Amino acid sequence: MNMINGGVCAAKGFKANGIHCGIRKNRTKRDLALIVSDVPAKAAAVYTTNLVKGAPLAVTKENIKDGIAQAIICNSGNANTCNANGIEIANAMCNLVSNEIGINANDVVVASTGVIGQPLDIAPIMGGMKELAEGLSYEGSQVAAEAIMTTDTVLKEIAVEFTVNGKSCRIGGIAKGSGMIHPNMATMLVFITTDVAISAEMLSKALSTDITNTFNMLSVDGDTSTNDMVTVLANGMAGNAIIDSEGEGFDAFMKALNTVTVALCRVIAGDGEGATKLLECTVSGAEDMETAKKCAKSVICSSLLKAAMFGADANWGRVLCAIGYSGANVDVTKIDVSFRSTAGEIEVCKDGFGVPFSEEKAKEILLEKEIEILVKVGNGPCTASAWGCDLTYDYVKINGDYRT
Amino acid sequence: MNMINGGVCAAKGFKANGIHCGIRKNRTKRDLALIVSDVPAKAAAVYTTNLVKGAPLAVTKENIKDGIAQAIICNSGNANTCNANGIEIANAMCNLVSNEIGINANDVVVASTGVIGQPLDIAPIMGGMKELAEGLSYEGSQVAAEAIMTTDTVLKEIAVEFTVNGKSCRIGGIAKGSGMIHPNMATMLVFITTDVAISAEMLSKALSTDITNTFNMLSVDGDTSTNDMVTVLANGMAGNAIIDSEGEGFDAFMKALNTVTVALCRVIAGDGEGATKLLECTVSGAEDMETAKKCAKSVICSSLLKAAMFGADANWGRVLCAIGYSGANVDVTKIDVSFRSTAGEIEVCKDGFGVPFSEEKAKEILLEKEIEILVKVGNGPCTASAWGCDLTYDYVKINGDYRT
Repeated sequence: MNMINGGVCAAKGFKANGIHCGIRKNRTKRDLALIVSDVPAKAAAVYTTNLVKGAPLAVTKENIKDGIAQAIICNSGNANTCNANGIEIANAMCNLVSNEIGINANDVVVASTGVIGQPLDIAPIMGGMKELAEGLSYEGSQVAAEAIMTTDTVLKEIAVEFTVNGKSCRIGGIAKGSGMIHPNMATMLVFITTDVAISAEMLSKALSTDITNTFNMLSVDGDTSTNDMVTVLANGMAGNAIIDSEGEGFDAFMKALNTVTVALCRVIAGDGEGATKLLECTVSGAEDMETAKKCAKSVICSSLLKAAMFGADANWGRVLCAIGYSGANVDVTKIDVSFRSTAGEIEVCKDGFGVPFSEEKAKEILLEKEIEILVKVGNGPCTASAWGCDLTYDYVKINGDYRT
Repeated sequence: MNMINGGVCAAKGFKANGIHCGIRKNRTKRDLALIVSDVPAKAAAVYTTNLVKGAPLAVTKENIKDGIAQAIICNSGNANTCNANGIEIANAMCNLVSNEIGINANDVVVASTGVIGQPLDIAPIMGGMKELAEGLSYEGSQVAAEAIMTTDTVLKEIAVEFTVNGKSCRIGGIAKGSGMIHPNMATMLVFITTDVAISAEMLSKALSTDITNTFNMLSVDGDTSTNDMVTVLANGMAGNAIIDSEGEGFDAFMKALNTVTVALCRVIAGDGEGATKLLECTVSGAEDMETAKKCAKSVICSSLLKAAMFGADANWGRVLCAIGYSGANVDVTKIDVSFRSTAGEIEVCKDGFGVPFSEEKAKEILLEKEIEILVKVGNGPCTASAWGCDLTYDYVKINGDYRT
């Protein structure tokens, strides 16, 4: 498997574009993205478990229930959620795409992100649709990725090349997500495209399996958004023998998909609102995956641990504390904790008790940009990772007055 | 019922003291507290549900399993948790009290609060015990309350006078708690004393019933501490006919206890680490208490809502979002939201959708020090409140480098 350029346009037959249409006041910020496959594609999606759901999710769910989609439209600057006319506006967005590029309105995935509870005006979207469609390009991934950003400071794009039964295939994705991130069964906005030939059923299976180890193990601030969605379109243009059951081809696809999703998780966590560091907690030695996951996620969700990491303070007691209240059934007298980064690795807790360590060395390790928190909870066979970020002054600043 | 002075010394027959013994380097900060009843008292306690439990909790649990205690010793500056010799040190603290004031070591409640995972040196406690005991006084509540503070900025003390079957009784408490606060079945350190005559069984029942609506509805940062404990000692010196079953007397006691615990919840929330505001979310119209509680607690736990309150931003979408992921089964199209403070009240959401409101007026309301978030989720009979605080730069600052 090779990392390649191109994001959502890396796979054969996918064009994209992103423009400023006027939803946002800042004219230098793109706010409308479109991704289109040359041919109808198999589609799968997972959605937020929040009971308050953005209107676009309901429309998308309806549109892809036949397992087919050909385009994705997404605006930033307004979540189109908790508005009386939300469904109407989301459908209007699909119709505009349909009319402009001549595909079925039912084959459009629609998404919105931004502030909740303010009506989304269709006028700027209508006004920008022609420019958006005319600018579609096989090199358009980056501008599409820009157009879905909200408080993101880093563009989130990745693609890899892999092989299915001798055929070269590609998969790539873009994402937005910085705050209100604590996905559950789905996440933020992630759009993945691939040219692999795969049945809708296996595509859906691949996605729903993968997210339990990737986006569901990611948290910036413990808040599960109302608009989370991950979608994948597979247009089959790679020409491989179709993947319609488990086996070697499916495994190769799962591996490629996982490479894309883990990379997006890491970049989303590292670009968490106000974050200065990416935190990766890996819990090993668990008796079962559930235990490993609960522990890892609890650690990266702890506000206290997140603040300690901001201060480069090796306060491992907060790691133990977070495991203790995680709900996981572990023997606390078997827990070992180490911190690791490019500056080295240091053990700070052994069998549930503190071990003497160099505070100076620990500080050096924790001053790096990517910190691994390594936890061993016993001698079981299961390992899980979770991703998060530090808690900083800037998180508070960004969210203290988001709407204005 | 009347509010009175005196804290843990308000009830008849309780002395207290607090000194600096040297666990903390700062010589102006008291770090060791002692509360003693003139006679053996009925005792009840609830403890953290964190699997990682401070050693003092294990010792206390053992000591009060007969329902009797006569003294409480508590140090700040070190949690005596995750240390190999933790139990030994906690027992040594009880023995020192026993030797100094001539009570049974098994009748001592022991507690510690501070950093986790650093050995607690018994030497300063041993050295300070004589001074601590000699200084015990019926006016000592305040210095005891000072001695248990960690990052607290406000001394937490309350007492009320109430009547049981014609007899005047008193109950009072002190508390510490500012960060690592998200109690579950117990909380922070709260020491309550009363002179009411009550059986150990009914005392325990009163406490465990009360905390489900008080300390378990409190959160500063979502982190459940390893050392949370609420204890109540009832020495019977008020001379009322003993409360040994449900009825009028028990109800009067429950009401007094609840007054004390709600007051302590509010002061703990308002003094949350870095907090500038107390948040109280009251959810009404729920079909059952579980639903009301889940919604209220989810709202005051949301980092995004907490940051918005810091910025006095009426971002009600975050209230709906938090209810949506709370796990409570509510109809989101029935949710109304208002904000209220001494500056007035403003409705911002009706039936799940935004309503037009004056941003200026909302700002004015949210700039106050105590904010009520009023949520109606339907027409059911149940109402619950939860307490929290805003998320500020200072929370991050305080926790970025706590250990040094």
